[in-house]
Amino acid sequence: MTKSASAARTVHFDALHAFTKDAFESAGLQPPDAVTGADVLATTDSWGVFTHGTKSLAGYLRRLQTGGLRPRGIPRVASEGGAWAIVDGDSALGMVTSVFAVRTAIAKARQQGIAYVGVRNSCHFGAAGYYTWLAAQEGFIGIAMSNDIPSVAAPGSRGAITGSNPLSYAVPAGRYRPMLLDMSTATVAGGKVYAARMRGEPIPDTWLVGADGKPTTDPSGYPQIGALQPAAGHKGYGLSLLIETLSGLLTGAAFTWRVGNWMWDDGKQPTNHGAAFVVIDTNAIMPAAQFASRMESLIDEIHAAPLAEGASQLRVPGEIEWERHEQAMKQGIALPEDVLTNLRKAADMAGLSPEWLT
Amino acid sequence: MTKSASAARTVHFDALHAFTKDAFESAGLQPPDAVTGADVLATTDSWGVFTHGTKSLAGYLRRLQTGGLRPRGIPRVASEGGAWAIVDGDSALGMVTSVFAVRTAIAKARQQGIAYVGVRNSCHFGAAGYYTWLAAQEGFIGIAMSNDIPSVAAPGSRGAITGSNPLSYAVPAGRYRPMLLDMSTATVAGGKVYAARMRGEPIPDTWLVGADGKPTTDPSGYPQIGALQPAAGHKGYGLSLLIETLSGLLTGAAFTWRVGNWMWDDGKQPTNHGAAFVVIDTNAIMPAAQFASRMESLIDEIHAAPLAEGASQLRVPGEIEWERHEQAMKQGIALPEDVLTNLRKAADMAGLSPEWLT
Repeated sequence: MTKSASAARTVHFDALHAFTKDAFESAGLQPPDAVTGADVLATTDSWGVFTHGTKSLAGYLRRLQTGGLRPRGIPRVASEGGAWAIVDGDSALGMVTSVFAVRTAIAKARQQGIAYVGVRNSCHFGAAGYYTWLAAQEGFIGIAMSNDIPSVAAPGSRGAITGSNPLSYAVPAGRYRPMLLDMSTATVAGGKVYAARMRGEPIPDTWLVGADGKPTTDPSGYPQIGALQPAAGHKGYGLSLLIETLSGLLTGAAFTWRVGNWMWDDGKQPTNHGAAFVVIDTNAIMPAAQFASRMESLIDEIHAAPLAEGASQLRVPGEIEWERHEQAMKQGIALPEDVLTNLRKAADMAGLSPEWLT
Repeated sequence: MTKSASAARTVHFDALHAFTKDAFESAGLQPPDAVTGADVLATTDSWGVFTHGTKSLAGYLRRLQTGGLRPRGIPRVASEGGAWAIVDGDSALGMVTSVFAVRTAIAKARQQGIAYVGVRNSCHFGAAGYYTWLAAQEGFIGIAMSNDIPSVAAPGSRGAITGSNPLSYAVPAGRYRPMLLDMSTATVAGGKVYAARMRGEPIPDTWLVGADGKPTTDPSGYPQIGALQPAAGHKGYGLSLLIETLSGLLTGAAFTWRVGNWMWDDGKQPTNHGAAFVVIDTNAIMPAAQFASRMESLIDEIHAAPLAEGASQLRVPGEIEWERHEQAMKQGIALPEDVLTNLRKAADMAGLSPEWLT
């Protein structure tokens, strides 16, 4: 199950899943909720999106142990109408609330064709792509988004104005794996800036603004000093405000600086993150075979398109993640050292010591 | 009403609106449809978005006269469910079909909280922002998007893969004008590349890929050679495919290369553009005063945020357009020379000769 003492270590998906589930149970979650949390985090790792997978388990455990997350919190529909609902997360684990919310959206979309479910009293929900993938697995188009404490500048601002506010969608695609995008509205993940700082390397001038609000190649003060740049300038900024509106403003959640800092606070207070899920039932709108065939044509066309000089393949969003996922399910997940370090912390907090982590 | 023989000429909004309406009527549109078309185009000019306003009137008239657009086309709901509808545009003017579609979405959102209306058999619809503004005027969140014939590369492609596929949203904002974003998913408008070519100037290497699919600073072959770069690389590419899905794939419209070239073909065939409108009734979800107050807080916070060195103001999406609009309604619209040139063509085609255009 393990490689020798290399930096990365290959772990079986089921082992990672079981460990994560046990850790959540040790923090007081009921088994079904612990499974949900484990499934979100281990699946995210299987896509190679290690920034949003089990690397954060220790952080979630900390909040569960100190009270900022409620182990027995029960998300519920606080208000609803024909094609919408607002879910109050009761400060349960963000993944538990988000899975409940996307399932609520699926049920409503099945009735009405489309549904919006907004979420308040949630927390960091991991990778937005998990929830849209869940919808696509059941044959629906899924769209997911979340707000977060500001870390991204606006064009002309000195500091952060919005969160990195992620946006994901997934679309069922016939014989192909669902088309799947999961992006932040910042140019780059904060973790990449921080990693450059740790290595003492300069960064491209499109990643960060410094203390004066102007682009900088110096990451040495980040994250205390500076803010990420929005993706494509006013476009990323504009999209982040739509996400803030649908996740935060319209749901009753916290927004911008009112959102708690889930990673760096004392862990005792709810963060009141917001999120939003939109689900569309393509089967209600177009015969399933026709939609599938049209999606296949689109993907075939992209795969057959001429390549730029030096390019080896033209990808549909999500293809790289699916390839990694399939490889991970066969050969295990090669966890990088930073993930292993955090998993060891989580194991200590949970009083667990799985063989593969020693 | 007019300035002297300068490059730009200032025209009263009502005069531009009346001329545009008369021109559409001359091409066979019924008066209410002509008013709709005029309102979309003149309002767009009033925002200073001259690339998508009356500059295109001559192009629409050409299609109306040669058969690619049907002057008496009547958009209708082809299929529908609780919170969705598909509108068949009957090859009517794209603005007529789009206004019908967004109004259909508003009516359904009023019942269900959210609605999706997809459109097929449409054409170029002008500025996406007009339709979201229309929804916001009535107190709804509006989202609008459209596909188009490919002009934008994907990461790794040699040529164009998707259209510039615009995305707009508008959100009512209490005492403030609606927050309004209207963006393409390309880095830059093709018109800007073409203008640089006309001036014989190099362009930034983030705008275009050349014949080999690699970034270039040479616009001299555009648009015959090269493709625009997607905004923020895989993010803009990914968003354009969501827009393609909701506008083209799911509606029965043409998609990618199947979409007609509304500007450069012989004008005789329908283009079968697709579009999609999503409307959310915030009043169903949250008390109106509460949502307004939260939006005002967000905007107040942005206005009060510290500025980057050298920046004079921090803007909420749409603010610049609203300022231009208010000035235009008071002082007239300063039409640039390229718009005037095209309006003169339109006047010739329509057999009109308004005093202000001579």
